[in-house]
Amino acid sequence: MNEHLLSMHDVSADDVIRILDTAESFREVGSRVIKKVPALRGRTVVNFFLENSTRTRISFELAAKRLSADVINFSAGGSSVSKGESLKDTALTLQAMGADAIVIRHSSSGSPLQLTKWVDGHVINAGDGTHEHPTQALLDAATVRDRLGGVAGRRIGIVGDVLHSRVARSNVFLLATLGAEVVLVAPPTLLPVGVAAWPCRVGTDLEAELPGLDVVMMLRVQAERMHGAFFPSSREYAVRYGLSERRAALLPEHAVVLHPGPMVRGMEIAPAVADAPSSAVLAQVQNGVHVRMAVLYHLLAGAAA
Amino acid sequence: MNEHLLSMHDVSADDVIRILDTAESFREVGSRVIKKVPALRGRTVVNFFLENSTRTRISFELAAKRLSADVINFSAGGSSVSKGESLKDTALTLQAMGADAIVIRHSSSGSPLQLTKWVDGHVINAGDGTHEHPTQALLDAATVRDRLGGVAGRRIGIVGDVLHSRVARSNVFLLATLGAEVVLVAPPTLLPVGVAAWPCRVGTDLEAELPGLDVVMMLRVQAERMHGAFFPSSREYAVRYGLSERRAALLPEHAVVLHPGPMVRGMEIAPAVADAPSSAVLAQVQNGVHVRMAVLYHLLAGAAA
Amino acid sequence: MNEHLLSMHDVSADDVIRILDTAESFREVGSRVIKKVPALRGRTVVNFFLENSTRTRISFELAAKRLSADVINFSAGGSSVSKGESLKDTALTLQAMGADAIVIRHSSSGSPLQLTKWVDGHVINAGDGTHEHPTQALLDAATVRDRLGGVAGRRIGIVGDVLHSRVARSNVFLLATLGAEVVLVAPPTLLPVGVAAWPCRVGTDLEAELPGLDVVMMLRVQAERMHGAFFPSSREYAVRYGLSERRAALLPEHAVVLHPGPMVRGMEIAPAVADAPSSAVLAQVQNGVHVRMAVLYHLLAGAAA
Repeated sequence: MNEHLLSMHDVSADDVIRILDTAESFREVGSRVIKKVPALRGRTVVNFFLENSTRTRISFELAAKRLSADVINFSAGGSSVSKGESLKDTALTLQAMGADAIVIRHSSSGSPLQLTKWVDGHVINAGDGTHEHPTQALLDAATVRDRLGGVAGRRIGIVGDVLHSRVARSNVFLLATLGAEVVLVAPPTLLPVGVAAWPCRVGTDLEAELPGLDVVMMLRVQAERMHGAFFPSSREYAVRYGLSERRAALLPEHAVVLHPGPMVRGMEIAPAVADAPSSAVLAQVQNGVHVRMAVLYHLLAGAAA
Repeated sequence: MNEHLLSMHDVSADDVIRILDTAESFREVGSRVIKKVPALRGRTVVNFFLENSTRTRISFELAAKRLSADVINFSAGGSSVSKGESLKDTALTLQAMGADAIVIRHSSSGSPLQLTKWVDGHVINAGDGTHEHPTQALLDAATVRDRLGGVAGRRIGIVGDVLHSRVARSNVFLLATLGAEVVLVAPPTLLPVGVAAWPCRVGTDLEAELPGLDVVMMLRVQAERMHGAFFPSSREYAVRYGLSERRAALLPEHAVVLHPGPMVRGMEIAPAVADAPSSAVLAQVQNGVHVRMAVLYHLLAGAAA
Repeated sequence: MNEHLLSMHDVSADDVIRILDTAESFREVGSRVIKKVPALRGRTVVNFFLENSTRTRISFELAAKRLSADVINFSAGGSSVSKGESLKDTALTLQAMGADAIVIRHSSSGSPLQLTKWVDGHVINAGDGTHEHPTQALLDAATVRDRLGGVAGRRIGIVGDVLHSRVARSNVFLLATLGAEVVLVAPPTLLPVGVAAWPCRVGTDLEAELPGLDVVMMLRVQAERMHGAFFPSSREYAVRYGLSERRAALLPEHAVVLHPGPMVRGMEIAPAVADAPSSAVLAQVQNGVHVRMAVLYHLLAGAAA
């Protein structure tokens, strides 16, 4: 496995399987009363979050703590960053303090890669701009594997604001690596330039696609990243790309519904669909902690071994 | 003991005594150089604070850490809550991540009870709107017991903004459970509807009540919750319901002065009164950590045993 | 050693040497895979930061965690302080909760000293207004010792906004204690009243001083503390007091460049100078963690022994 986890291009199919297998063994740890192993005792993991995300920050914090690492939370507000320090100097400072791994979330695509050019420690991308969010794709793959016994050969639809979604980008590449057939279903204005080169098909008619899907992954509408007017209104979005009860009924019986969260119920997904047995939304969250434990373990404990 | 601690109605007199006794044994731990026991190693306690409170958050954080639990702090700012996620989805997410206990502070009365309908883990109310703040009442009872040898039969006055005070509500019910005689002293505009059904007497003349009290509990003026005009001015409040030196002199020699903090000196309480030997304000803070250790211990270690 | 670390006047030359020697032994701990010793297990260190400083807060947090202490972070936003509580009451509250040490950063000079009058625990000044920042001076001395083999007899220039710099103040006194010759180089408007009584010389011509310096310490421009107009523009500051490449070339070969960070590159220091081998900026950061471990160790473990 690579020294860092920046994008799904950093991991081979073998690496992914190894991470998912390790995550499964950590799930067993998570079911104990004492949910802790000493694997990373005395290591320092810095959650370097320059963009807000309580959910992902907590997931990484718990993952590191369950491996007995020390965790430092660093967020933008009131930090040296706001005093005019460059990203490079902040990163070098964290390294000089002894950070073994830096988990970075940043609004600029490519900043985790930049970081690796400056620091010696391990860098984990926890979401960079509209680029990638690899641990999200890994936890999605873990969830599909759990529910359907495997990823290869499944048809997986990714629905919604693909343009602004790092989750979509990481998933397309990971799922293709694992042999799935991926279909993007999005308004033409919310598809990225160059999507033709991605290992997937593009559709626009959600209802025509649903009956053929094994998995439907609804994306969050990244309202905070839509600086222009990409669609007329949120109501319009829900009408055309939301997963209503009527639409969910078009899915095959065995199909699994995913959403990376936080969900805006009634917008991307109807409440009854989010709560139905076919929804794996909470399994995704649970797998998130175990997948992140596995990533930290392979990067940090692997390197020391 | 119940699975959750939501209100003083969840605990019998026996439960209360058990918690106070356990808190006393944890006080001994707190006096050691190594203030730590391994009781909750590997458990995860989430401080889910959707309303600001550094003091209560730190008290719970210390309590959990002294029991060797892992603590995650979750506050509203910049969280998924601000991205439109419902309270239910946030709670289910925390549970899916493996939270063994959720300590919740929320501006809406009843939200901790709601939480228990969604999550399997233990829920502890750290203050909900104008409803209850049970660990505050427990630490107050612990403090009265320390100072006066017991609660039963004591006459305890609760003075000030009862209407907005979850501290008052929890205390009235807990103190009555323990056999104390409770008197509320408040401006008529700051008494809740239905107070006639509470197990206490209501007075309006503070100076007439003081000579008969064993304990006087001053309430914080909840300026942040007074959306209307409940009294003419803060000066007027101090004049009529503040505990001045002259008024404190009306108390019996043995009487104890309590305040839940943070104090606005000169408003609810005169500086000299807050610092007098009769004041148990800092004993309350100290008991707070031990009472919260006891609550976490009974809910979490009890459940596992 | 004293019970507190408030200013460089609290420590004798012997104390300083003892701290620097201990810091060196902790550097060895920092180079291990498991960067942790059990020295302060079960102790509670509170980071009480009423002024923003991610960098110093993290350095103390890591120092305490590597000694196995429990760390509580307390910052101003949304705290009891904002509800009108006095500094004294907040400090007494932290002590009542069992804080063994309070690391305080505050915008008012002298507030750490005030704290010691109220609490029994150890107080460490992490920067108070324009007064002192003793752990910064200690880490600077550690860095000079590393690079030049000692501090005594070296000529050290401190350049820039001395008036607002607690770093300058702490360094002047510490470096003089250790036998260095200190020169302040600053615009006359940015020199404090009374500087004539300090154990140092004052210069105004940076370029004339550089060839004679063993160490040049650039100060951060405390833009947030400059309420008036102390110099015409930041461009003007850079032109007259910035360490450009041309100026850095005037230093002797062996000279060391220091900056407390966060750096505003191009303002106080040219990027190429900050990154040159003569720059010890990152060594300062690294020494910061070890010096703070040493201070916590001597104050807390020493007291218990």
